Parts: sequence; structure tokens; C-alpha cells
Amino acid sequence: MAHAALAEGDRVVSPYAVGSLLSVEQLSVADVAEILAMTGRLERMDADERARVLKGRTVALLFYESSTRTRTSFELAAKSLGATTTLVSDKSSSIEKGESLKDTGLTLRALGAECIVLRHAASGAPSLLARATGLPVLNAGDGMHQHPSQALLDLRTMLARLEIRGSTSQVSSSRPGAPSVVADIHAGTLAGVTVVIAGDILHSRVARSNAMLLPRLGAKVVLCGPEELLPEDALGLDTGEGPAIEIERDFDAALRRADVAMMLRIQRERLAGAALDLEEYVARYQLNGERLAACAPSALVMHPGPMIRGMEITDEVADGPQSAIEEQVTHGLAVRRALLVRALGVQA
Amino acid sequence: MAHAALAEGDRVVSPYAVGSLLSVEQLSVADVAEILAMTGRLERMDADERARVLKGRTVALLFYESSTRTRTSFELAAKSLGATTTLVSDKSSSIEKGESLKDTGLTLRALGAECIVLRHAASGAPSLLARATGLPVLNAGDGMHQHPSQALLDLRTMLARLEIRGSTSQVSSSRPGAPSVVADIHAGTLAGVTVVIAGDILHSRVARSNAMLLPRLGAKVVLCGPEELLPEDALGLDTGEGPAIEIERDFDAALRRADVAMMLRIQRERLAGAALDLEEYVARYQLNGERLAACAPSALVMHPGPMIRGMEITDEVADGPQSAIEEQVTHGLAVRRALLVRALGVQA
Amino acid sequence: MAHAALAEGDRVVSPYAVGSLLSVEQLSVADVAEILAMTGRLERMDADERARVLKGRTVALLFYESSTRTRTSFELAAKSLGATTTLVSDKSSSIEKGESLKDTGLTLRALGAECIVLRHAASGAPSLLARATGLPVLNAGDGMHQHPSQALLDLRTMLARLEIRGSTSQVSSSRPGAPSVVADIHAGTLAGVTVVIAGDILHSRVARSNAMLLPRLGAKVVLCGPEELLPEDALGLDTGEGPAIEIERDFDAALRRADVAMMLRIQRERLAGAALDLEEYVARYQLNGERLAACAPSALVMHPGPMIRGMEITDEVADGPQSAIEEQVTHGLAVRRALLVRALGVQA
Repeated sequence: MAHAALAEGDRVVSPYAVGSLLSVEQLSVADVAEILAMTGRLERMDADERARVLKGRTVALLFYESSTRTRTSFELAAKSLGATTTLVSDKSSSIEKGESLKDTGLTLRALGAECIVLRHAASGAPSLLARATGLPVLNAGDGMHQHPSQALLDLRTMLARLEIRGSTSQVSSSRPGAPSVVADIHAGTLAGVTVVIAGDILHSRVARSNAMLLPRLGAKVVLCGPEELLPEDALGLDTGEGPAIEIERDFDAALRRADVAMMLRIQRERLAGAALDLEEYVARYQLNGERLAACAPSALVMHPGPMIRGMEITDEVADGPQSAIEEQVTHGLAVRRALLVRALGVQA
Repeated sequence: MAHAALAEGDRVVSPYAVGSLLSVEQLSVADVAEILAMTGRLERMDADERARVLKGRTVALLFYESSTRTRTSFELAAKSLGATTTLVSDKSSSIEKGESLKDTGLTLRALGAECIVLRHAASGAPSLLARATGLPVLNAGDGMHQHPSQALLDLRTMLARLEIRGSTSQVSSSRPGAPSVVADIHAGTLAGVTVVIAGDILHSRVARSNAMLLPRLGAKVVLCGPEELLPEDALGLDTGEGPAIEIERDFDAALRRADVAMMLRIQRERLAGAALDLEEYVARYQLNGERLAACAPSALVMHPGPMIRGMEITDEVADGPQSAIEEQVTHGLAVRRALLVRALGVQA
Repeated sequence: MAHAALAEGDRVVSPYAVGSLLSVEQLSVADVAEILAMTGRLERMDADERARVLKGRTVALLFYESSTRTRTSFELAAKSLGATTTLVSDKSSSIEKGESLKDTGLTLRALGAECIVLRHAASGAPSLLARATGLPVLNAGDGMHQHPSQALLDLRTMLARLEIRGSTSQVSSSRPGAPSVVADIHAGTLAGVTVVIAGDILHSRVARSNAMLLPRLGAKVVLCGPEELLPEDALGLDTGEGPAIEIERDFDAALRRADVAMMLRIQRERLAGAALDLEEYVARYQLNGERLAACAPSALVMHPGPMIRGMEITDEVADGPQSAIEEQVTHGLAVRRALLVRALGVQA
């Protein structure tokens, strides 16, 4: 099974990857545990103490694609740690003049940036940038490839809301405002947990990153969507043989088994000419109140955002008690703090 | 009279409005007095003390329309109080992906934003955002509806330059650099003061907010402009019966009575197909040196900016001694500090 | 000779120019020495001390043209000194509404900005802004006119890498990371140094600023490029008689004499309809490994960025040991700190 080939032991290690987070592929279970432990430590600090962790350090945010939540999340994470940030975005930069990603990276390094957070339309761009600059690069989404910090925040949201604990862990309140999560992370942490990922799997780096991460902790991932958005080889992972990832076309059948329903946005900007009947899509794959009622009452609803309400999800569900969508954002801030601290090699 | 119906006692109170400033409508005279008193206290602090007032607090600036002065003003106000800011603007955000205002607001809240400053093309958007997030929202201009912080800064500029005092107040130098203003604010503070607002009233949220605020303090508001830009019901306020707001088509006649001439920009981007003869407009409604000479020598010239010099105002007038245009900007910074402090419920 | 007419003694002095850097023209050799001395002092400070130099001061960045390196450089320079910054760029500001540069400047001043860093497509805009506001203005590139901070950083890069010393100076390590440079700056500091500037001279404010600055310190400047990009009067300087600046069409002949080869980008966005045969251009003027091998082994390669690799320069040369391109960026950060401190009249 392709997935198995990527798990534990096959961790990609290269000199430039130290501190970088390019893909979920590079993370061992021990790395995940370490990142989440760091996340918790930073979260429990008081604000003044936290603001000294990266004092005097410089983080560059390099966004070649539009973003609200991920950019703001990394920016506020860096600022809350006391780092100086600078934002370079596609609309008003040398990117317009045809400068290469490599040279933009080298420039940021020469200006004192010690870490670059990169969003880019091309798969593999973060890896290229890390190689070119030798700096730690945090992949904030590259094309249809990876969005590893999203997978980590999704994991943390599940740990908090599903109240999953290891023998030595304490889970404190998992509601927003006090999202402190400690869990003993190992290959069986999510054993018995079924995560349904539904919608535009094909174009989704979020789906790809989650499908790579969650099974390593024992979760079962069920991918759900129509042929156009979920061809058999959608993720480039062999999903035919192993038990960890499977495809289920029938959304209702999938939901009956779901501990988590992770809904994805139809990425119209990537659909191009593909003929998708949106009305039929809504009928078959929208998560609405009726469908949710058929799930376990403890089932979580997640969405990486931005949501198109009325399309893949209804207001009732997005704003309902089973929704963890806002908590995902809060966990994102927390996880990204840890990624920045790790990237800069700081003890905290 | 419609205006009277909005004054004192009809204050809009709702749970989500605490700390918000959505419309001038919601402000009682006592609220205005409190905001201006806070403005003065913050202004008299030394910079170091001021930088501790909102230390560790987070303010989001959400701008769906282009802006220099208002955005920069709120941003620098927040930074001078020690707050962390993050800017989300239309050009490089999930707004492009069709995310709803509500979800953008919920995301910002989940990221730790404690107050959102919003500019939006749709009237009522700030109210929607406040309701959706429960956060204090400061309306930085919504469509053709309201621009309440502008009305407050305009009021403060008048108080400073017209040297209006209550029995217990001290007005120190009102020139830029030392714009400390204390006035006893009550329903008669501006009694006897005539404010001429001239130009594109129809499309102006500034006019609307001022016409709502100033009469509550006793001022007379005279609206002036051609039919196309000032239909009889331009502001949606009944201006036919009451004495507080009237329409005068003859600019020279209006100016003869003016203590303040507030000039408005022709908003070409909102005019659409409306056939306005600009040459005739300039001839009839431009504030030039000759016209100003016919005013009282103490009459103030104001403009919310951006100005189109040579259109509604000449260089001579904009840069002359009666102009308070730059002071408006300085008072804007001061007033917005108070609004932020009030929004976050901080004692200062 | 036109150049001589600009040197020492003809320094442009006007009240509004105090603290401003509008053009290299205004800088005496003593000014240059002072700026570079300040640069060194700021560089040797520890980060905490440096962060107090402009604490509580406000710097506005006003960018009407796209920029990565210059904007980020000034921004990080200001932040590293503890200043508060605000960025106004063309894409989301009142610039769109037709507000004049003057009024934008007056607004920024009224908001407390004490210095404006300006990039603008029109030659002379920084001078207009300084006159209109009375604020110190730092020219970050105006049209095809000037880019004075670039010339200063280029000078500092040469001083560091060519190991030029005055009798009393010490040059410490000149490699990035420890770019401390002390040189005795006088009219002969660069005596015997030949700087070849090659490429699109006509449209280059970088070329213009360097050709004005370097000869004052004794350097010889050789301009190199095809007729279309380098007409006889490309810089508006009389280059026919004096010895300081000459034109050499044969790139290989120029390189044989070069201590520094400064390559310029073809500015396609300014070329408009001009018919330039790019293939022939590359054949005649690209700096590649073979050409560099014919230079002195100590010859420096410089480029103000953004580079178009494969056009005016090859990867091999840009990334090779003779390249000082990244060091230029680092020196840029350092020099701009000094310019900001000088603009604000602070002792450091």
C-alpha cells in the first residue's frame, strides 16, 4: 500500500528540511507528538512570556495565492511570539516583474528573514524554496499538493473534541477560549476513528495532507465524492488494497460510519471546463441537517474554509453544536506558533 | 420630523452593539461626551503610557473597499495603543473565493481578534458582522449609509477650531501638534452653529452621519447641491419640516450663513450613468477663494478627503488658513483611539 | 562636464531637503561618509539597543509601484529600529480615487508620520512630496530618475568586497552575516576602480544614481549596452568629454577592465514598442561564465534585482563566488536604517 510506504521510517530527511514543514510525508509520529506538545506549552504560557519566545526574530510571509485565514493565522502566530513579520503578496511585488521564487527567497534571507511561510500555486514550490535558501520553509499550501499545517490543526481539533487521551494525558476544556489539548500521540491514537472527507478531493491539498497524516495515527479515512471530483487515484495514493483509506461514493453510507465529517469547498477556480452539475452535487453531497441527524450525535463537522454555505454545507450544520469549524481556526493559530518556534530552532 | 425620532432616547441598544459603533444613530449625547472625554485622556498620555493601554490585544482591519486615510488612521491608532493589528483587504483574501462576510468575521474571532474595524460597500454590513460574531465592530464606512467615526472627528474638529466650551471645559491649542480639546457636550453645545454640507450628498455616508450627529448637539445643517446629487429625500431623513436640517440650492446663499463649510468629493465611481455637467457643477458649487471671501472670516473649511482639487475645492481654499482639513485627520487618529479602547472595554 | 557640475559644492540645499534623500545629487562626499559611518554604528549595535533608536517614531511607506526588495528592506529597517510603520500601496488606497500625492502626504503627516519613504512612477515625485509636506522624504525610486539608497548600498557593497580602506579604517569580514564596513570616504576612495554598468541603462534609475555617485569617490564608470538601451545621452549627463563616465559598446572589452560588473534587468514594462532583439541582446550582453572567466578573478558581479536569469545573467554567474548580489540586499537593509535615523534627526 502506497500509504504504508510513506509512514514511519520512510521519513524524508534532508539537510534543508530541518525546521521546514514541506509535506506531511516528512513527519514521523514522534515529530507530530513533539509539535503538539510544543503547541500546548505555548498555549499555556501567559501572553507576556509568549511574546518573548521569538523576540527579535524575523519571519517572512510569502503569499503567491490569495488567503485570509492561513496568512492571518501565521501572521498573528508570529506576532504573538514577538517576531517581526513582513508580508510579500502577489499583487504588489517583484513577482509581477518575473523574478524567480528562488531570488525572492534569497532576497528575504539577505534581509534577515529566518523563516519563510510560503503559499504558492505550484506543487513543490516550498521544497524548491527551502533548497534554494537553506532557510526553514513552512508550506502554507502548494497547489493541489500539500497543506501540512492544516492537517496538524485538523488533528488537534479531533483530539480536543473527540476527547482522545493517552494514559498519561489530560484533556482540559476543548471549547474555544480554552483549547488546551494534551494527548499521547502514537500509532494507535486515532484507532477506531473514521474520518469522512467529502467533496472536491481531487483539487484539495487539505484532503491529501489529512489522508496522509490521519492513518498514521490509526484513523480510517473514507473519501467521498462524485467521479469528477474523486477519481480512483485522486490523491496519487494507492487506495485499492489497504484498509486505511477507502472510497465510498454514497455519502449517506459514509456518514453512518463517520466520527468526523470533513467537508471541502468546490474549488470553482480550479474546476475550469469540468462539467459538474452543481444541483446534483448539492443533492448528493451537501451536508445538511437531515443528513447530520443520521450520523452519531457525537460526530464532528469540520471544514478547512472558506465555506460556500448552501453548497457543500448548510447554515444549520455549519453553525450547529457538532461543528468544530471555528475551533479549527483557533487550533490553527496554536499549531502554527509551534511550527514557527520549531522552524527557528528555539526551545520553548 | 424623522431626525427628532432618532435623537436621545431612541438610542439603538442591543447586546451585540456593546462597544460597537455601527451608526451615529446608536450614540446618545452622553455617549458622544464620553467618547470625546476618552479621546482627550488618551491624547494627553505620554506615548509610553499610551502604548500599554491595549498591549496584548488584537484588532482586525477588514477593508472590502479601498481606503488610505481611514484604514491608516485606525491602524496607527491601534498600534499607538500597543495593540496587534492584522489587515485583510479585498485584493488578496478569501473574499475572492466567495467566502461570506460572516465566515470571515468568525475566522478573525477564532484567531483572537477582539474587535473588527470594517469598511464594506454594502450598507448594514457592520451590523451583520457584529450580530454574526458578537464582537465589537467599528464601522469604517458602509456603502452610502454611515461613517460614524468621521462624524465624531468632524465634531471634534469643530469644537477645537470654533473654540466652543462648556463652563467647565478648557480648550488648549487647537492647532495640529497639540489638538487637545475638552468641551462640555450637551444638546446645546453647537447651538447657533450652521454647518453647510455641499456637493455629492446623495452618495455620501459622511453627510448622512454628520446630518444625524450635529443637530443633536444643537447645530443647524444646511445641505447644498444640485438636484442630481441632492434630491429632496437624499438622506432618507425627512428634511421638510424640522428646523435642524434644510436644503439650500444656492451655494452662495448657504455660505453667507456658514460657520463651517464641509465640502464633499464627487464620487465618480458611484455616479454611474448619471449625467452631471461637471463644468456647471464647478461653476455653481466649487468652493474657491472668491466664495470663501464672502463667508465670515472665522468660517471653517472642512473636507473628509480624498479631495479632488480643482473640482469641489481650489488649492487656495484647501491650503488656506480657514482650512481645517489636516486637523480633521489628526482628530481622526485621536477619536479612533478612543473608539478602540471603548470597543475593547478597557478603562483609560 | 555635466557630471562635474553636480559634484561637491553644488550640493542642492533647501529647507525641505533636511533629512530627505531625494537624489544622489544632493549628497556631498561628507554626507556619504556620515551616512556610511552611521550605517556601521547601527550595524554594530545589539538588536535590543537598535530597537530603541526609533522607538515611538512613525514611518510611512508609500509605494505607487510594485516592489519587493526595496519596500521590505525599508520596512524591516524601520521595524528593527523600533519604529511603527504603515504601508500604503497603489492597489488598495485613495490613490485609486484620484487623490493627489500631495494630499496623501499631508494625510500621512497629520496621522503622525515623521518620514515618508516613497516609490513613484513619476520622476521628481519625492521632491514634490517633500516640498508639500515639509517632512523628510526618502526616495525609494522615482520613474527613470533616481534610486539613491540603491547607489549607497552598491557603494557599501563595493567597499566591503573590494576591501578598500582608508588609512584609519578597519574592514572586518565582508561576508554576509558580518558585513561591517568602515572606510575612509573621500574623493579618492574609489580611485582606480572601474565599474561597468551593463544593460538597460536608458530606463534605469539605478544606473543614473550610481553614475552620479561613484565618480565623486574617484571611480570610473563604463556604461555598456546597445544603442536602443544606451543612447549617447542616456543618463542626461554629458559623457563625451570627461574621464569619469564613458560609453563602451563592446561588452567583452568593457569587462576586461572591470573591477565591478553591475548588470541591469531589461525592463520589458518600460520598453513598450521598442524593437529589441532579445536573442541578439543575450548573445552580446549576457554575463555568463565564459565572459566572467575573462575578467579579473577579483572582479565583483552585482545586480540591483530583480534578475531575469537566463537573460542578462546566467545562474552560474548569479550564484557564483564573485557574485555580491545577496550582499547588496543585506547592505541595503543596513544603509536604509541609517537613512531613516538621519531623516528623523536622531543621534545614534
